[in-house]
Amino acid sequence: MIVLKFGGTSVKSAARIKNVANIAARAAEGDPVVVVVSAMGDTTDYLVKLGRQISRSPNKRELDMLLATGEQISIALVAMALNEMGHKAVSMTGAQLGILTESVHTTARIVDIKTDGIRRYLDDGYIVVAAGFQGITPEGNITTLGRGGSDTTAVALAAALQARVCDIYTDVSGVYTADPNTVPTARLLKEVAYEEMLEMARVGAQVLHPRAVELARKHRLPVRVRNTFDPEATGTILRGADEMEIYRPVSGVTVDRHQARIAVLKVPDEPGVAGEIFSALAEHRISVDMIIQAFHRDRSVNDITFTIKRDDVEMVQSVMEAVAQKIGAEGVLTDEDVAKVSIVGAKLMDQPDIASRMFAELGKQGINIKMISSSDIRISCVVSDSDAEKAVRVVHDLFHLEEGE
Amino acid sequence: MIVLKFGGTSVKSAARIKNVANIAARAAEGDPVVVVVSAMGDTTDYLVKLGRQISRSPNKRELDMLLATGEQISIALVAMALNEMGHKAVSMTGAQLGILTESVHTTARIVDIKTDGIRRYLDDGYIVVAAGFQGITPEGNITTLGRGGSDTTAVALAAALQARVCDIYTDVSGVYTADPNTVPTARLLKEVAYEEMLEMARVGAQVLHPRAVELARKHRLPVRVRNTFDPEATGTILRGADEMEIYRPVSGVTVDRHQARIAVLKVPDEPGVAGEIFSALAEHRISVDMIIQAFHRDRSVNDITFTIKRDDVEMVQSVMEAVAQKIGAEGVLTDEDVAKVSIVGAKLMDQPDIASRMFAELGKQGINIKMISSSDIRISCVVSDSDAEKAVRVVHDLFHLEEGE
Repeated sequence: MIVLKFGGTSVKSAARIKNVANIAARAAEGDPVVVVVSAMGDTTDYLVKLGRQISRSPNKRELDMLLATGEQISIALVAMALNEMGHKAVSMTGAQLGILTESVHTTARIVDIKTDGIRRYLDDGYIVVAAGFQGITPEGNITTLGRGGSDTTAVALAAALQARVCDIYTDVSGVYTADPNTVPTARLLKEVAYEEMLEMARVGAQVLHPRAVELARKHRLPVRVRNTFDPEATGTILRGADEMEIYRPVSGVTVDRHQARIAVLKVPDEPGVAGEIFSALAEHRISVDMIIQAFHRDRSVNDITFTIKRDDVEMVQSVMEAVAQKIGAEGVLTDEDVAKVSIVGAKLMDQPDIASRMFAELGKQGINIKMISSSDIRISCVVSDSDAEKAVRVVHDLFHLEEGE
Repeated sequence: MIVLKFGGTSVKSAARIKNVANIAARAAEGDPVVVVVSAMGDTTDYLVKLGRQISRSPNKRELDMLLATGEQISIALVAMALNEMGHKAVSMTGAQLGILTESVHTTARIVDIKTDGIRRYLDDGYIVVAAGFQGITPEGNITTLGRGGSDTTAVALAAALQARVCDIYTDVSGVYTADPNTVPTARLLKEVAYEEMLEMARVGAQVLHPRAVELARKHRLPVRVRNTFDPEATGTILRGADEMEIYRPVSGVTVDRHQARIAVLKVPDEPGVAGEIFSALAEHRISVDMIIQAFHRDRSVNDITFTIKRDDVEMVQSVMEAVAQKIGAEGVLTDEDVAKVSIVGAKLMDQPDIASRMFAELGKQGINIKMISSSDIRISCVVSDSDAEKAVRVVHDLFHLEEGE
């Protein structure tokens, strides 16, 4: 059997719902099918706004009760469309699907899926239209799964039902070597490793929510990213790096332009001072990305530099100024003219010269590198924001990512 | 404990939802409270329209899945408003309330209510905000109750929880002796018998759905009709005729202006011919109200006259013409210039001169009576539509209904 998932833009009108029903019906010719859908278009935003008119911070249990109606509307309409076309189809809410979650509202995690009900319908030849994003607690309260919830529902259902594949339909054709708007020669990737996808999501390429990718990786479930408006195209398949048919050290180049850089200058080189800085950030729930500690010549002080989300700059600056005073640092510098350009590849480490070639080429093209960080499967350079797009093109060309697999 | 019910106009905006929360909170000072709400304003119409865009006759199971979201939205918002005001409140869907119905979609009847869940919340001091209009089948499918569903939910919950009273909040102040738009001296009734209310609903005074009244009567549950926008007023209480404190033969005058009269002329006086007429009507699901069979002088033929809803005239005329030909009647006459004026009173039979006084007064005032029918607690006259309002005023004056109890 297979699981198909359609996001909000894919079901935002009657015409689009009929398109989704067509895709599901065609898939059902070959396999038993479960279709997971999100709320229509802006429905969730509309519901949130409605709640805000009642309360500035609405009761979370009641917010979940409210938001869950969004998917309930779309599943009913998709199931109607399938019935209208002469197919046996039935919609199921999170509760009816047996999607049990923690007793936490607005960001619940799935604990278990009781598949008896859904299996009974599948065995009877029904296409099951499942509400994404929602579940139920053991006490019977409706919960929602938070960001990426519908992707997570689809992958979790596919894993629980031992589906052979989970197709995530979206409004792009799959995962590209780079953003085609920046790099005209960007190429659609036929396959991507789970780990690469996670890194790409982290550095700004949001096709599939990382939570869902993690879950797919855990269950070794193949996930295809496909285009709702070009359903014949095969899209990109996500699988384990060891299962990939194609060898390549670099899979893609991404850019994150919502970054800023903060430097705490001349921090005394004493035990605990770095701790002061990062616990202050943690207290304010600021997630820090790259961290660099640079020596000064006299070795009694260090500069500590890190990157954050640009939206957090003002808050972080004031927090850091207080910390700097407390620990006896010289001051705080902020730099919003930054962007992070990264290359991602599950087999990056197989070719140790990749990093040096990247740095050299950027230098040759006159692009100054402000910071560097790397992981097993990613190398990131912070550059000036105005250099960002050029840097992406330079790196894309350097590794010939436009060439077919 | 008490049950309060608010219809769609009472919850159609954030401001009105806050008003509802205020009324509920005030009620909760004295008693444990269950608040039953309908879908906001035009939400149900909007959802039906959405369904129609997908299918001209939507799958009924899916239509119920779709429509049930309407009440789910309002319960969440009302519970949010109560929480915002600092009260403990929790919303519950039909499924969570344990409202078990038949496995019939769009017009399900309530079979049983499992009150454990709701009682637990009430015992813990919560105001329970319950979704009207919806239930769940033993198999776990969402159903809706059809017309008057939310009123029915409220009364059924009140009966199951042995509430001391069920308050139906609406946009009028209660039940009047006549429509105040027609009769400026119309008076609000302090109490009305269940049977009177049923007759009034049948002849056009739609304050509370007859289904809910029947249920209240069955359980001898006191129901108050009150005004959402004047919550201090006591409204009208419905109770058994034998429990009423006030004696009066005539409680109110109603008028139904959506009537038409059909006469099948010179029907042969043979066994079975009347059966032909009324089974043809039943086949077309036409409900017939008054029926009169008049002799002709020669006694071998009769005229059979009956009233129907004016909307059905064309269809009934063509059906009757076919029947007339088949049974050898002379022809079919239709009369759309009719209205039905009725007096209702649980103790009407106690004063046998009421009917004759009504007919005499109408005649004296130059109003021609076209048809008459009566039941234990109702006397109806069909008059010309142009006489309808005058007839209501004449009868209201005749029985001094404007005078206080």
